[in-house]
Amino acid sequence: MCNLFNLSGKVGMLKNGFFRSNPMLYSARNFSVKCMHYGTNVDKRTLVSGERKQRTFSDRSQLKYARRLVVKLGSAVITREDGNGLALGRLASIIEQVAECHHEGRECIMVTSGAVAFGRQKLTQELLMSLSMRETLSPSDHTREDAGSILDPRAAAAVGQSELMAMYDAMFSQYNVKIAQVLVTKPDFYNEETRKNLFCTLSELISLNIVPIVNTNDAVSPPMYIHDDTVVPGTGKKGIGIKDNDSLSALLAAEIQSDLLIMMSDVDGIYNKPPWEDGARMMHTYSSKEQVQFGQKSKVGTGGMDSKVNAATWAMARGVSVVICNGMQEKAIKTIISGRKVGTFFTDCPSNSTTSVDIIAENARTGSRVLQKLTPSERASAIHTLADLLIEKKEQILEANAKDLEEATKSGLEKPLLNRLSLSAGKLKTLSIGLKQIADSSYENVGRVLRRTKLAENLMLKQVTVPIGVLLVIFESRPDSLPQVAALAMASANGLLLKGGKEAAFSNKALMELVKESLQSVGAQDSISLVSTREEISDLLAMEKHIDLIIPRGSSDLVRSIQKQSQHIPVLGHAEGICHVYLDKDADPIKAIKIVRDAKCDYPAACNAMETLLLHEDHLNGSLFTEICNMLKHEGVKIHAGPKLATQLTFGPPPAKTMRHEYGSLECCIEIVSDMDAAIDHIHKFGSSHTDVIVTENDATAKQFLNAVDSACVFHNVSSRFADGFRFGLGAEVGISTARIHARGPVGVEGLLTTKWILEGTDHTAAEFNEGKRNWLHENLPLN
Amino acid sequence: MCNLFNLSGKVGMLKNGFFRSNPMLYSARNFSVKCMHYGTNVDKRTLVSGERKQRTFSDRSQLKYARRLVVKLGSAVITREDGNGLALGRLASIIEQVAECHHEGRECIMVTSGAVAFGRQKLTQELLMSLSMRETLSPSDHTREDAGSILDPRAAAAVGQSELMAMYDAMFSQYNVKIAQVLVTKPDFYNEETRKNLFCTLSELISLNIVPIVNTNDAVSPPMYIHDDTVVPGTGKKGIGIKDNDSLSALLAAEIQSDLLIMMSDVDGIYNKPPWEDGARMMHTYSSKEQVQFGQKSKVGTGGMDSKVNAATWAMARGVSVVICNGMQEKAIKTIISGRKVGTFFTDCPSNSTTSVDIIAENARTGSRVLQKLTPSERASAIHTLADLLIEKKEQILEANAKDLEEATKSGLEKPLLNRLSLSAGKLKTLSIGLKQIADSSYENVGRVLRRTKLAENLMLKQVTVPIGVLLVIFESRPDSLPQVAALAMASANGLLLKGGKEAAFSNKALMELVKESLQSVGAQDSISLVSTREEISDLLAMEKHIDLIIPRGSSDLVRSIQKQSQHIPVLGHAEGICHVYLDKDADPIKAIKIVRDAKCDYPAACNAMETLLLHEDHLNGSLFTEICNMLKHEGVKIHAGPKLATQLTFGPPPAKTMRHEYGSLECCIEIVSDMDAAIDHIHKFGSSHTDVIVTENDATAKQFLNAVDSACVFHNVSSRFADGFRFGLGAEVGISTARIHARGPVGVEGLLTTKWILEGTDHTAAEFNEGKRNWLHENLPLN
Repeated sequence: MCNLFNLSGKVGMLKNGFFRSNPMLYSARNFSVKCMHYGTNVDKRTLVSGERKQRTFSDRSQLKYARRLVVKLGSAVITREDGNGLALGRLASIIEQVAECHHEGRECIMVTSGAVAFGRQKLTQELLMSLSMRETLSPSDHTREDAGSILDPRAAAAVGQSELMAMYDAMFSQYNVKIAQVLVTKPDFYNEETRKNLFCTLSELISLNIVPIVNTNDAVSPPMYIHDDTVVPGTGKKGIGIKDNDSLSALLAAEIQSDLLIMMSDVDGIYNKPPWEDGARMMHTYSSKEQVQFGQKSKVGTGGMDSKVNAATWAMARGVSVVICNGMQEKAIKTIISGRKVGTFFTDCPSNSTTSVDIIAENARTGSRVLQKLTPSERASAIHTLADLLIEKKEQILEANAKDLEEATKSGLEKPLLNRLSLSAGKLKTLSIGLKQIADSSYENVGRVLRRTKLAENLMLKQVTVPIGVLLVIFESRPDSLPQVAALAMASANGLLLKGGKEAAFSNKALMELVKESLQSVGAQDSISLVSTREEISDLLAMEKHIDLIIPRGSSDLVRSIQKQSQHIPVLGHAEGICHVYLDKDADPIKAIKIVRDAKCDYPAACNAMETLLLHEDHLNGSLFTEICNMLKHEGVKIHAGPKLATQLTFGPPPAKTMRHEYGSLECCIEIVSDMDAAIDHIHKFGSSHTDVIVTENDATAKQFLNAVDSACVFHNVSSRFADGFRFGLGAEVGISTARIHARGPVGVEGLLTTKWILEGTDHTAAEFNEGKRNWLHENLPLN
Repeated sequence: MCNLFNLSGKVGMLKNGFFRSNPMLYSARNFSVKCMHYGTNVDKRTLVSGERKQRTFSDRSQLKYARRLVVKLGSAVITREDGNGLALGRLASIIEQVAECHHEGRECIMVTSGAVAFGRQKLTQELLMSLSMRETLSPSDHTREDAGSILDPRAAAAVGQSELMAMYDAMFSQYNVKIAQVLVTKPDFYNEETRKNLFCTLSELISLNIVPIVNTNDAVSPPMYIHDDTVVPGTGKKGIGIKDNDSLSALLAAEIQSDLLIMMSDVDGIYNKPPWEDGARMMHTYSSKEQVQFGQKSKVGTGGMDSKVNAATWAMARGVSVVICNGMQEKAIKTIISGRKVGTFFTDCPSNSTTSVDIIAENARTGSRVLQKLTPSERASAIHTLADLLIEKKEQILEANAKDLEEATKSGLEKPLLNRLSLSAGKLKTLSIGLKQIADSSYENVGRVLRRTKLAENLMLKQVTVPIGVLLVIFESRPDSLPQVAALAMASANGLLLKGGKEAAFSNKALMELVKESLQSVGAQDSISLVSTREEISDLLAMEKHIDLIIPRGSSDLVRSIQKQSQHIPVLGHAEGICHVYLDKDADPIKAIKIVRDAKCDYPAACNAMETLLLHEDHLNGSLFTEICNMLKHEGVKIHAGPKLATQLTFGPPPAKTMRHEYGSLECCIEIVSDMDAAIDHIHKFGSSHTDVIVTENDATAKQFLNAVDSACVFHNVSSRFADGFRFGLGAEVGISTARIHARGPVGVEGLLTTKWILEGTDHTAAEFNEGKRNWLHENLPLN
């Protein structure tokens, strides 16, 4: 049913849906190819081996261009934890990904282990069956466990190989992918003819749109080994020691000029940074110059990390990009190809200009500590320098900005976005003035004493403000955010990573140069850096060891997405602003109309604009309801009716789809409530705890409302639009937070600070107090 | 190769490892059974259908006892998103779980869809091949897509069924599980003989240790339907409308007296709580009395939610517990059986006494708002009531505690843990006094004004303290934590969920009754509740909509595990306390020895005990090093040498394995540093930012150290043991935090508070300020 491959390249076909188990079929001095597919649908590709130009990738973001891909599966990936049988779910998922790559037009080759494990399981079963026949007894679990360990691995491999291939075939056929088995032994690489045949056959298979599955012929051959010094015959290249599938996959990848080799095992990657020894997630780029420290050992498989790194560096030296990753991770192949930082990326090209984001983040931490050691006036002077540079260097800023604008216009960016992107001499001047204000108000930020207590005689405690540490600010188009945020970080002595939008890349780069220049003036140039636009946000969000707080500045979609994605780093911001204005029974109609107009119409896109108007039911029959509706109509506001309002009106506005909606435009919902308590219930049920307003002349009612409504901002007789850091007098606004810990509501620089406790004594010990030799005073002292 | 099952119960065997595709084999008026397995290893089980007693589970925690299990896979689970072909990875994972259940001794039956999708893919392929043959052209993707849609589903089912079974067989054989195919049609249920045969055969298969795979025979039969009113022949029971596999699985589960039916589709569960309409995670127990609201529609499959709920309630009424879950979720079956809250759990037994934790949490939020509305003296009075009750009801508390102690002694709990668990009249008295102190110091907690600003004429802003919301406190053995934490929550007007250890269950229950009684006195009984010990912590950690802050009180393992697991709820606490004492060049030797002794030996298990002693290198040759070592040896402290110290000593202490280790016992590490900056670097590199100490007589050095070390607590010439809420004079201690946002270091009640902004005006609008009609004042006012 299966034909042997003719090494000259002709392919024997088999028109049967499922491959079934067959007598073992292998050759000793040669490699054998079993072709398994069931159709004649051969899609000719244009690619011919040898003619194509090999790419080398200097950066993970280029991996998506990988055309020819070798995926090596370690036995730990394929084998179940108990060592017997295949980890089917994992294998199926990998096959699914390889099939997807194949259908995307990538040429895939798999190097697989696992035959031994598979065969062991089969043999165990046979053994148990014969036991059971002999004993006419059902075997105990104990026997079952023992059976596996007494088996010869070579016999197991012999049994397992064909069954393993049948499994691959059955699975790949699900995705209409045809596969071929290529078994290799050591002499195949010494004998020039078989060697040529091997690579020729692989190319032929690839050109026939078939995925070759390569394995060492464990059943007949001892582990292969060619010394590193051995020149591989016919190539002039030095060989790699093929002692396992790691080196085999490296050799194959190099010989068939693969772009990318993915080696999947049971380790996350390579540790080469001592501070990460405590299990930090690996997402590293390894360049050939670096010294590798091995922090983790592979649990299963003979190779271990040494063999993988040797194989990887060998392949890398031959122009193949390599990623070593954990095959247990979901969707590892697709994730790696998408450029995400999974596993260790090996590249021979020194990464061009951009430093790894881990290093940038570590530097930001160190830099923050430098900033913290400075005096407040030194920090302020750096901000002043930046403010001055914005004016001095305005030509080069505007030049860079012009480039961004040109690109943006070409790509058809919409007018409002272009406006946000555009800088001008005027904007820079305003920006510079704002920065000087931040500088002037920064003297009390860091080191401010919040509490002083005399704990005992000569034992003085104080709590002082200190920076949080390293912030990550993610901002969209507006490049003017960059110097603003940088100044806030300097003012609060925080380290800062900035991730700007791609559309403002030139402007951001130019502005960052000025930030660096100003930092250099105080020796803290490392504390603030721009993260490359290529960095994936999800990778940054996983850096909880390096980043203490994330501040997204942009659309509520951005904020929401980041809040959702970030698992261990707190995010300062608000996902939605569903603000209510409640017109109480005792509301003054004129104030009510004035406040509602401002809350909805002053700037409908703002998060502090009103989305739902709650009306005391008494107003439904009075003139206020009509007047409000007329005013809103006059302002062009589209009204939606809440369920209660809808039932009370014969011809009312269209019903609101939900009461929990941020329109963000000239639209709002009106709902009727029976009293203030109902209004509060409504706000708690449908609001977003941002800003809620009561309009009433009854001070007792107002007091109750202000006390009971559980939102960041609660207002009486004023527009919701006042919820804003500048309007609150907090100076520069970091954002508005609806979180319930740390800062809440409009956040100024204070939100970027935490505290530390400083205790000074002479020789105080806890034991002295326990023993009554010293006494507690706990006397609160004035702050200065 | 495959034998038809003889309905009298004899089994035909097949001794071949892999099943291969076969001509379609089905019967129209009867159901057919294809037996696929490859061994005679039949493990006779004791179970005989009809004799066993059926269990009904009232609680998810009992699902682990499920003995007979029906797993129903919807087509959405098995089918790829594009509708063609199987989602192989998903299917393999489900089969892996079923196989595991099987090997655990559970009897599993699968009801599967997917034949149509599978057949469609096969047919598409055939169609494309014939196209390709005719046109001698590789088909374009366009044709490929079209081909699928023109196929007859019945034909597709005919093709797919056998191939699907082959796939199941190939996969199950990986786990040494034998399966049999059972195809059913409508008449099988009307005809008494075939109906009996069917259930008899299923029982027979199960007793033969074979997993039956049941499907409707889509190829020959229209969708089955038996009206709900129809009495199923021979049973006297009313039938369920078998219009799809949902009802089929319910009928089978009921007829074969299955314990548990798991219905897997592409929805998470059932929404029956309007406030959760915005995509809250479903983890619900559905009892037959509840009204169901459908919030989500199944994307694929004919059934949809109605059919699932009908089927589930039908089965539930017949004593089968049902879980509807999302089959896309990883390890859903194992997770459900482990008792985790995945999907919707249907049970006919009203859940006994314990309210669902969602409802408890919602009540805590409402209760918190009640507490918040109270006056400070009302809150204080509730705490006083609790303090009094601890004395009044001490007999019943101690009685409950005695039960816990008895159980604990039986189970061999160790002495120190027994001590922590044990209460006494003395302990209760101390506790009561402590509570009264919390009450007396609580007046300023909530509503304290932190900032007052006159924004403009008649526009007054203030920032006031408010409770965070709902806290989850997870505590281990000590039952005295319960009233303490409850008092802190009352004092700060927070809602509170308490999760205590199982070993203190009786004591906690008794104490919680007193807490409820004291809360009742102010009408806030819902604000604090004990979460059942059965609740999984991981389920609680996923309740970010209900819980605002988690406070683990217990071992550092507990804290670490919770910090790691919690993805969206902040955790207040510290995972480790790696505290350093640095003996500067200018340290006073007597002070140094005194402080080091206290820091290490006063209470070595505390998080604020010293773990590493950093010694200025000048001391290596002086007497201080020897004296310190002698003192430590005298105190029984085992010393480990850091790398630098090790190289400097010929016969030194054994080397430390790592410098980042919390010994938590009479052990410590000593390392040499060249100067204070090196000490600071060491602390930053290996410390946990908890508490670090400098001992020096040089005030300038001390100042630099206190300024530069980036830890929650930094001390000069005092023992690290002072890092403690009580010692700091913060009153009751909530915990010590090493987080960098919100509270840091020892945390008192303040850490349980956040703020809200209250703005009062007359009719102020933002537009008036923009238009210059009003002017900003931003005048800071005194706080009172």
